[in-house]
Amino acid sequence: MFESAKLKHHVAPAVYHREEAKLREALLNAQFDLKEQRRFPVLILIAGVEGAGKGETVNLLNEWMDPRQIHTHAFFRPSDEESERPPNWRFWRALPPKGEIGIFFGAWHTMPIVQRVIGETGEGEFSGAVAEIQRLEKMLCDEGILLIKYWFHLSKGQQKKRLESLEKDPKTRWRVTDLEWDYFRLYDRFIKVCDPFLRETSTGEAPWIVVPGADARFRALTVGRHLLATIRQRLDDSRGKKPARKALPLPVVGDRLNVISKLELDQKMSKDEYKLELEKWQGRLNVASRDPRFKNLSVVAVFEGNDSAGKGGAIRRVTQALDARWYDTVSVAAPTEEELAQPYLWRFWRHLPRHGNLTIFDRSWYGRVLVERIEGFCSDADWMRAYGEINDFEDAMVSHGTVVAKFWLAISKDEQYRRFKEREQVAFKRFKITKEDWRNRERWNDYEVAVCDMVDRTSTAKAPWTLVEANNKYHARIKVLKTLCSAVEERLEQIPKKDGKRK
Amino acid sequence: MFESAKLKHHVAPAVYHREEAKLREALLNAQFDLKEQRRFPVLILIAGVEGAGKGETVNLLNEWMDPRQIHTHAFFRPSDEESERPPNWRFWRALPPKGEIGIFFGAWHTMPIVQRVIGETGEGEFSGAVAEIQRLEKMLCDEGILLIKYWFHLSKGQQKKRLESLEKDPKTRWRVTDLEWDYFRLYDRFIKVCDPFLRETSTGEAPWIVVPGADARFRALTVGRHLLATIRQRLDDSRGKKPARKALPLPVVGDRLNVISKLELDQKMSKDEYKLELEKWQGRLNVASRDPRFKNLSVVAVFEGNDSAGKGGAIRRVTQALDARWYDTVSVAAPTEEELAQPYLWRFWRHLPRHGNLTIFDRSWYGRVLVERIEGFCSDADWMRAYGEINDFEDAMVSHGTVVAKFWLAISKDEQYRRFKEREQVAFKRFKITKEDWRNRERWNDYEVAVCDMVDRTSTAKAPWTLVEANNKYHARIKVLKTLCSAVEERLEQIPKKDGKRK
Repeated sequence: MFESAKLKHHVAPAVYHREEAKLREALLNAQFDLKEQRRFPVLILIAGVEGAGKGETVNLLNEWMDPRQIHTHAFFRPSDEESERPPNWRFWRALPPKGEIGIFFGAWHTMPIVQRVIGETGEGEFSGAVAEIQRLEKMLCDEGILLIKYWFHLSKGQQKKRLESLEKDPKTRWRVTDLEWDYFRLYDRFIKVCDPFLRETSTGEAPWIVVPGADARFRALTVGRHLLATIRQRLDDSRGKKPARKALPLPVVGDRLNVISKLELDQKMSKDEYKLELEKWQGRLNVASRDPRFKNLSVVAVFEGNDSAGKGGAIRRVTQALDARWYDTVSVAAPTEEELAQPYLWRFWRHLPRHGNLTIFDRSWYGRVLVERIEGFCSDADWMRAYGEINDFEDAMVSHGTVVAKFWLAISKDEQYRRFKEREQVAFKRFKITKEDWRNRERWNDYEVAVCDMVDRTSTAKAPWTLVEANNKYHARIKVLKTLCSAVEERLEQIPKKDGKRK
Repeated sequence: MFESAKLKHHVAPAVYHREEAKLREALLNAQFDLKEQRRFPVLILIAGVEGAGKGETVNLLNEWMDPRQIHTHAFFRPSDEESERPPNWRFWRALPPKGEIGIFFGAWHTMPIVQRVIGETGEGEFSGAVAEIQRLEKMLCDEGILLIKYWFHLSKGQQKKRLESLEKDPKTRWRVTDLEWDYFRLYDRFIKVCDPFLRETSTGEAPWIVVPGADARFRALTVGRHLLATIRQRLDDSRGKKPARKALPLPVVGDRLNVISKLELDQKMSKDEYKLELEKWQGRLNVASRDPRFKNLSVVAVFEGNDSAGKGGAIRRVTQALDARWYDTVSVAAPTEEELAQPYLWRFWRHLPRHGNLTIFDRSWYGRVLVERIEGFCSDADWMRAYGEINDFEDAMVSHGTVVAKFWLAISKDEQYRRFKEREQVAFKRFKITKEDWRNRERWNDYEVAVCDMVDRTSTAKAPWTLVEANNKYHARIKVLKTLCSAVEERLEQIPKKDGKRK
């Protein structure tokens, strides 16, 4: 990967000045078109060895282009708000919106590489991290981000020379601390980890670009020209609409036997039994939420279901058991314009709870494989890839200590009709029934197919779906409470008890 | 303030159940209309003595209404991201958007009251805090927030009884810690501070509502009915457009002598001199930004000016001196829909830098008293009150250790004509000139009046305006750099030196 980078590249000052002027104008124009089109964002990752000109190049890019549309983020020690969410949360919140340029100084690859170099992780764990990065970057590209990855390189000899010369100059001496020399001593190990890493995470859509770092002018022109060509290509590429990409067809099920049709929707529960059970499970959930160990976890509960299946009522029975200070409910409707300027999952990432908190999603990211699939709001390829993306998303939560509980509330078509009619009568339920609900009802069978695919493809051991028979509201609410409560209790038991009272 | 609250209010269970059912339905309907109209947000502040039912009431409101449109925030220890911004940042970020309900458990009043009760602050400082709160709440009301403030009260005897009974019950014992008893011992001091505080911060638009806390049913009905009446009144009140409120007229200046016309716009600076000065001041700014003490402050630089006065060029000369990792540039254009659903200043609060960082605003909150005033985008009363609101906003920044530097770049009308024409010729400057620029030019005199008012009313000792003569770009850029650099250096000198290198 680094063979060419070690050669003695050199650009003469006169050549540089002539070329730089041209490049700058072209970059400014490209940036202007990017802003005007607002079709995609540009995300530039900056990585490589110490002293190879990463910082200088980023500053130069800011100097060449209009810094008002460039947002540079360096990721140092995570803030407490960041460290209480899955590790990638900090990257999601910093993503550039369409029409703008984001520069990440280090990103999702930094920690896995460092941990591997210093021996904190083994080969297997590192492979897992690499696979995660591959999937994340693929998703970002699929979502339309122009992802450009620069690796600034120096040979071991070049790095030594560079550090020594920085140290000699009083103006730059501050830049070389013990840390830099510590890194230098790890050079060989570092390269041994990074060389295959760069290969494995180089794809057709987002290859790593290795930039020889020794000659400042060569380095600058290399990056500038490549950046220009890449942005320009994408700008000119698809002025029209993105062609709808085809996905391979899913098998058509020959009979109507499926996980939904198999449900016994008419479960029985008397009002008296309900009252007893409600008190029991709300009480247990309340106790669990006040457990001191709850401070070390968070809960994400997802509610999906047929229209009028009783999501609202079930959510209310959950929140009744909780202190309002610790939960938030996110009602998922049409995305805002800030959300539309970002990858699909962005608007859910932004709502993930801190430790000690619960977030309840009333509808969720599963809209992608339900309503968006059925109404054709996205291409087949888009919702097909969403299954894997969603699994990764939930996996990131669970790995970080979040309990993820997902409920599909199912009612029969007859029961839905009864409820729609009833709701139209009752004043304070009138807001629950719209024309769209009647329209969705016509696509009942399409939804059934979509729900079954969703359950098959996203019910994982870590974040399983719970199918809730909901013709009887009492039964449904208790099943939800019981499942959620048991999941939280189970998770709590895995955390060693300490003294101390929840504040 | 608390006389009535001490009486033995009581509601019988039968009455309560009948009334609660009616209330709940009415509240749900009001909430639905609120969501449909999306005209204003509701913000409920919860305060009062310990054990008076604050938490219970908030949970009840969440139970009665649709929790999906209620967002409850309790403010405990600030996160590190919060503590590196002015104290009110955490409240701004939690404000409910139009159509939704926010509940704040404690808010801007909590710390000033606590600090006064335990004697950390004196009478004078407390008065200052009260005045700040008055202005903040007035601004929120002026911005259209329906602000409802509940104070839950218990007499000293009632509080003692309440704590004892909570302690006796094994189910609620966890709620009474030493802290609660510590608070109880401070009861008299607490009341002595709060009684006048409640009076002083009660206004026609946002009075404190004292709720007797001893009887749970009485308390619940009191809050529920009041909340309903208040929301309903506002919903029904102004279905049509808000009447444009008049402000008292500002004096019309009889001559054209003003701070702008007095400027000598044609300053001289040769290219050679510029180069020397540029290197000098960029170098100094760079050194200042790398000072270890810089970690304890932040910088907000505001750029306003005539169209084509050279804001972009000046900003670029500033950012050239800085490491891209530490600054961000915010280009202020039309607000997004998420921003439109919030008070005017919200979209600037969200961009305030953490410690160690700089944020450069290319146009800013001064749009309110410039373009919005001139184009009539807001009422006279709205831009008139903005001067005071802006002063408070900047004061909050400065008090928190932020250097606030504000630049007005002024050119002559002739010079502007020359630049407009030139820009239309040059390819990579074409994006800098639009029809709107030509239109704005016709209102040159209106802008001059607005700028002079702005400077008079918002140039404070802590956050002064720097008027920059900008016909000569070299002069303008150096003046900006020099002013900004000196302000940062001055602030640094006030911080005691410690060892340690900036990371």
